[in-house]
Amino acid sequence: MKKAAIIMGSDSDLPIVEKAAVVLKDFNVPFEVHVYSAHRTPDEAKDFSTNARKNGFGVIIAAAGMAAHLAGAIAANTTLPVIGIPVKSSALEGMDALLSTVMMPPGIPVATVAINGAANAAFLAVQILAVSDSELAAKLDCSRKLAAEKVLEKDTAISASFLS
Amino acid sequence: MKKAAIIMGSDSDLPIVEKAAVVLKDFNVPFEVHVYSAHRTPDEAKDFSTNARKNGFGVIIAAAGMAAHLAGAIAANTTLPVIGIPVKSSALEGMDALLSTVMMPPGIPVATVAINGAANAAFLAVQILAVSDSELAAKLDCSRKLAAEKVLEKDTAISASFLS
Amino acid sequence: MKKAAIIMGSDSDLPIVEKAAVVLKDFNVPFEVHVYSAHRTPDEAKDFSTNARKNGFGVIIAAAGMAAHLAGAIAANTTLPVIGIPVKSSALEGMDALLSTVMMPPGIPVATVAINGAANAAFLAVQILAVSDSELAAKLDCSRKLAAEKVLEKDTAISASFLS
Amino acid sequence: MKKAAIIMGSDSDLPIVEKAAVVLKDFNVPFEVHVYSAHRTPDEAKDFSTNARKNGFGVIIAAAGMAAHLAGAIAANTTLPVIGIPVKSSALEGMDALLSTVMMPPGIPVATVAINGAANAAFLAVQILAVSDSELAAKLDCSRKLAAEKVLEKDTAISASFLS
Amino acid sequence: MKKAAIIMGSDSDLPIVEKAAVVLKDFNVPFEVHVYSAHRTPDEAKDFSTNARKNGFGVIIAAAGMAAHLAGAIAANTTLPVIGIPVKSSALEGMDALLSTVMMPPGIPVATVAINGAANAAFLAVQILAVSDSELAAKLDCSRKLAAEKVLEKDTAISASFLS
Amino acid sequence: MKKAAIIMGSDSDLPIVEKAAVVLKDFNVPFEVHVYSAHRTPDEAKDFSTNARKNGFGVIIAAAGMAAHLAGAIAANTTLPVIGIPVKSSALEGMDALLSTVMMPPGIPVATVAINGAANAAFLAVQILAVSDSELAAKLDCSRKLAAEKVLEKDTAISASFLS
Amino acid sequence: MKKAAIIMGSDSDLPIVEKAAVVLKDFNVPFEVHVYSAHRTPDEAKDFSTNARKNGFGVIIAAAGMAAHLAGAIAANTTLPVIGIPVKSSALEGMDALLSTVMMPPGIPVATVAINGAANAAFLAVQILAVSDSELAAKLDCSRKLAAEKVLEKDTAISASFLS
Amino acid sequence: MKKAAIIMGSDSDLPIVEKAAVVLKDFNVPFEVHVYSAHRTPDEAKDFSTNARKNGFGVIIAAAGMAAHLAGAIAANTTLPVIGIPVKSSALEGMDALLSTVMMPPGIPVATVAINGAANAAFLAVQILAVSDSELAAKLDCSRKLAAEKVLEKDTAISASFLS
Repeated sequence: MKKAAIIMGSDSDLPIVEKAAVVLKDFNVPFEVHVYSAHRTPDEAKDFSTNARKNGFGVIIAAAGMAAHLAGAIAANTTLPVIGIPVKSSALEGMDALLSTVMMPPGIPVATVAINGAANAAFLAVQILAVSDSELAAKLDCSRKLAAEKVLEKDTAISASFLS
Repeated sequence: MKKAAIIMGSDSDLPIVEKAAVVLKDFNVPFEVHVYSAHRTPDEAKDFSTNARKNGFGVIIAAAGMAAHLAGAIAANTTLPVIGIPVKSSALEGMDALLSTVMMPPGIPVATVAINGAANAAFLAVQILAVSDSELAAKLDCSRKLAAEKVLEKDTAISASFLS
Repeated sequence: MKKAAIIMGSDSDLPIVEKAAVVLKDFNVPFEVHVYSAHRTPDEAKDFSTNARKNGFGVIIAAAGMAAHLAGAIAANTTLPVIGIPVKSSALEGMDALLSTVMMPPGIPVATVAINGAANAAFLAVQILAVSDSELAAKLDCSRKLAAEKVLEKDTAISASFLS
Repeated sequence: MKKAAIIMGSDSDLPIVEKAAVVLKDFNVPFEVHVYSAHRTPDEAKDFSTNARKNGFGVIIAAAGMAAHLAGAIAANTTLPVIGIPVKSSALEGMDALLSTVMMPPGIPVATVAINGAANAAFLAVQILAVSDSELAAKLDCSRKLAAEKVLEKDTAISASFLS
Repeated sequence: MKKAAIIMGSDSDLPIVEKAAVVLKDFNVPFEVHVYSAHRTPDEAKDFSTNARKNGFGVIIAAAGMAAHLAGAIAANTTLPVIGIPVKSSALEGMDALLSTVMMPPGIPVATVAINGAANAAFLAVQILAVSDSELAAKLDCSRKLAAEKVLEKDTAISASFLS
Repeated sequence: MKKAAIIMGSDSDLPIVEKAAVVLKDFNVPFEVHVYSAHRTPDEAKDFSTNARKNGFGVIIAAAGMAAHLAGAIAANTTLPVIGIPVKSSALEGMDALLSTVMMPPGIPVATVAINGAANAAFLAVQILAVSDSELAAKLDCSRKLAAEKVLEKDTAISASFLS
Repeated sequence: MKKAAIIMGSDSDLPIVEKAAVVLKDFNVPFEVHVYSAHRTPDEAKDFSTNARKNGFGVIIAAAGMAAHLAGAIAANTTLPVIGIPVKSSALEGMDALLSTVMMPPGIPVATVAINGAANAAFLAVQILAVSDSELAAKLDCSRKLAAEKVLEKDTAISASFLS
Repeated sequence: MKKAAIIMGSDSDLPIVEKAAVVLKDFNVPFEVHVYSAHRTPDEAKDFSTNARKNGFGVIIAAAGMAAHLAGAIAANTTLPVIGIPVKSSALEGMDALLSTVMMPPGIPVATVAINGAANAAFLAVQILAVSDSELAAKLDCSRKLAAEKVLEKDTAISASFLS
């Protein structure tokens, strides 16, 4: 199976990014985690991206805050799908990172998820790898059913609590 | 090859969506185009999504404006990757569609591209299909090189025009 | 009397939603509370909405955060009035939920109240049921008078405190 | 049948408001149209609201732009459901009117629809009157089916146009 | 001397509004403080405004949050200058109150100060009363000089602390 | 009678500012109009402000766009009431000018009106001068009544047009 | 004298960028103009930046729209001062480009000017080069005086036009 | 070597501004720190700016919050490069200070950095002084390398932690 990569622009993004790692582990998707900054280590970010496909990666998740260029900088150097997680920082409620990640120019898309949406970045990565992997697709269906069942359990408990 | 689908929430989105069709044709990716509204035809939207994988689709592009629920409604009924195009309408500069598309809850991601970013939605779809298709990946690399060359031609012309 | 329904998209919305239940109880309006997610349990959300009128409901309150599609998804499957409560979550100050709830396309309205405005959602539900129920309308008038009296008591106390 | 009222804050809102009148006519709901400004004719706005229920009204639609106080000012003087249409004016893309209309304090709700969403304000008014009027509810269901059919016709035409 | 009035829409605004009272006391401007809600006690708000000029008031300060209609509702019933304080509440960072206060339609201005800017509302009230009161104007000049001196003292201390 | 001043930061603001001049003329308030830039002619802006009170001015209106510092720069050099008109320019819908004008620090208020709200700036100036001028106050009351009558004429015409 | 560089992310930015070239010519500052895209020609953007100082450049101006990464990508590869011009595009009024340009992480600053502020980018470039060039500094002072005189001429004309 | 100045609009900005002082010390750039308010001490702010170049300054950093006019007020009185730090205060997440600082009119640029971006303001100041100082430029290159090494150390540690 192709690997996933999780790249964060700063080690301060780790608490957010960890939720993506948990999801990838749940699906037994092999992955690597790296800290590469689009601005402080542009060469390493570029080298990783340029060689990602031939190094066995199938999808790259990139998390960054503020003027979040990381996902775009990676996307500029690979044609693998790049998933961007806009990270909320101390001002502007994450709007800066969202717009810096999602408003990419024609030809270089970034598949953007919600602000701090690390779990969804990983779910999306699994969905992308599952396009050609029916076993992984079956796991996704199973995961969806479990999530639905959890909601319905909550519904049963909460709706009952208002009946008495 | 797996097919791509382009779904628009209203036929008024067609002028935006057409740019996605042009890109998919350029890459010879088979695709269908449909008009399904999350709110006016929820059953058709659901039926299409639920059966998309078994009907041979590998990725779904969904375009909608205002409270743009279409991509999310489709994503709720399939585990295929769903790409959302937020469409700018007459108020709020597309911010409503962007937030309605990208801020999805955990478990149900939408791969969101820029406001009116239909071409990029298609490029992303091709990138997703190319994860397991080295020929398509090669075409993507080729397309990137052509795009770079066009920029450099513009650079040559414009930089020269300021020299005289 | 027709029943009201309170639907929340996630059990994490319960602390907000409870304020709506308190108001409905004050007016002796019968109601049910449910947890249905537009994205994780789309079928249950649809089934509830489709059958709501014939099951004796007169109005539906739906609370959700982020890309808050729940009220719209319910409104797509019933012609009962649907009241949307945009719930503030950890980013964007509730603006995402507000725009996702209120900017509905023509034909499928959602009666949107303030961010986290659960009490007002319930007041609005009571007002809707009171259109054809003069006893309930009288209770609303009475409630308004009590609210006004409380303000005037505060006025008396505070204005006096600045006189000394 | 109870009447609907359409109140606009300025005659310049008439081109927006007319779409509400068209919908009410389609459903044969009796209605009146008035121009009352919360700021320039506060007494008339108050008198109308205070007496609306006893004058046979069941629901009031109020349209205003900028610091759109009209819907709230009406809601302060009646316990009938008040539907607010935020009108886009020359600056701020309608965000000012949206927030001024929707962010009402506890006890005095305004059922807010989309910016310039006059048609939906009328649909919502019809839905409210239909809570206790099964004939009107049947018309709403019929209207929904027609809207769905129109979407499906567009789907047929557009999906075919991409097949050739 | 003409009196100033400080009106708050809810007693929860008192901690903000108190800063205005402190400034008015400093300048020995007589004032009253009241709690009147534009929505919960519209009659009292109107009565106060209509009679304010003949009751000896020269300027009115109004503080409110969310869909902050209070200043506008007062301004609709008097031609005295009305100063609006937009109060920040639990969502949207005060933007809702700011736009609801400042974006008034032609003919009915509200002199808006910063979000939570209660002290400045009082300074502005004093400036308005000082237009025809040279003694009060002299006090304002004196207050400005003291404020400047405080800044320069801070400058002396802080600039020195970086020299060592 | 004390004079009013209208200062604009750039001659390109003249089409907006002219509406203020029209209102001041209607009330026979003497006024001067000037072009002083806070950034390009800071000395002239300061000289005018510093001497405004002793030169017979009672109130100053300042209009500027973008990072609209003009009203604040004037307010820093006078204790006369300063009214700020945020002018909408080619980007950001006037939000930049609004925030730059209204969010003043404690001690130096600017009485801010709506974006492009030049007429209201003049009405506010007249209201300020009328605090100690009962004749001018009477003219304001009269103006209000005329404005109300115009609204009611529109109401008569429009409400009738929907009756046929 | 050190050279200035003007880099645009797309040739569609040329109409904006030309205003910067005009200012640089006025000050006789030598400059080059290039089209390099952070995403489509990342290598050329990097090469130019890495070698800019040794190639005789003293300051770099970068203009880009949407997720405007260009200035940051250049700044990541040089320690020359980089000036960013956020370019307004078809959605979001330039807010996306502004935040993507200005919200840079610690260590890699971009000197950001106003949306579409190309002339100011050039003025800032001249100011930077003038820090160690007293002749250029004198030209800047002269330019400021001319700008002030133009404002005062407008003041004379406009203030007179309101006197008659 | 030319000096840098750090000016803050209020001593409450000191905790933010201190990060700029730390960076300047690291590079052995001589600097002064002052508290001058554009609104409370406009004369001192002007005097400092007017004389800055002849007093040996090469660059000025200005930090202010809310309607942050300080950087612009300084820039209006000098042709030295002025760097603006928008400071986040208690409302609006720093957006007010950002727009008030960056949206300067043609002719008077402010080199704006991120909200609370004091360290970057100092890095930019050093970069500006280094344009004509090759020793300082070498220190900047060295600082960049150290920053990159720190990122790569974090990468080594974090990537390893996910391998086990």
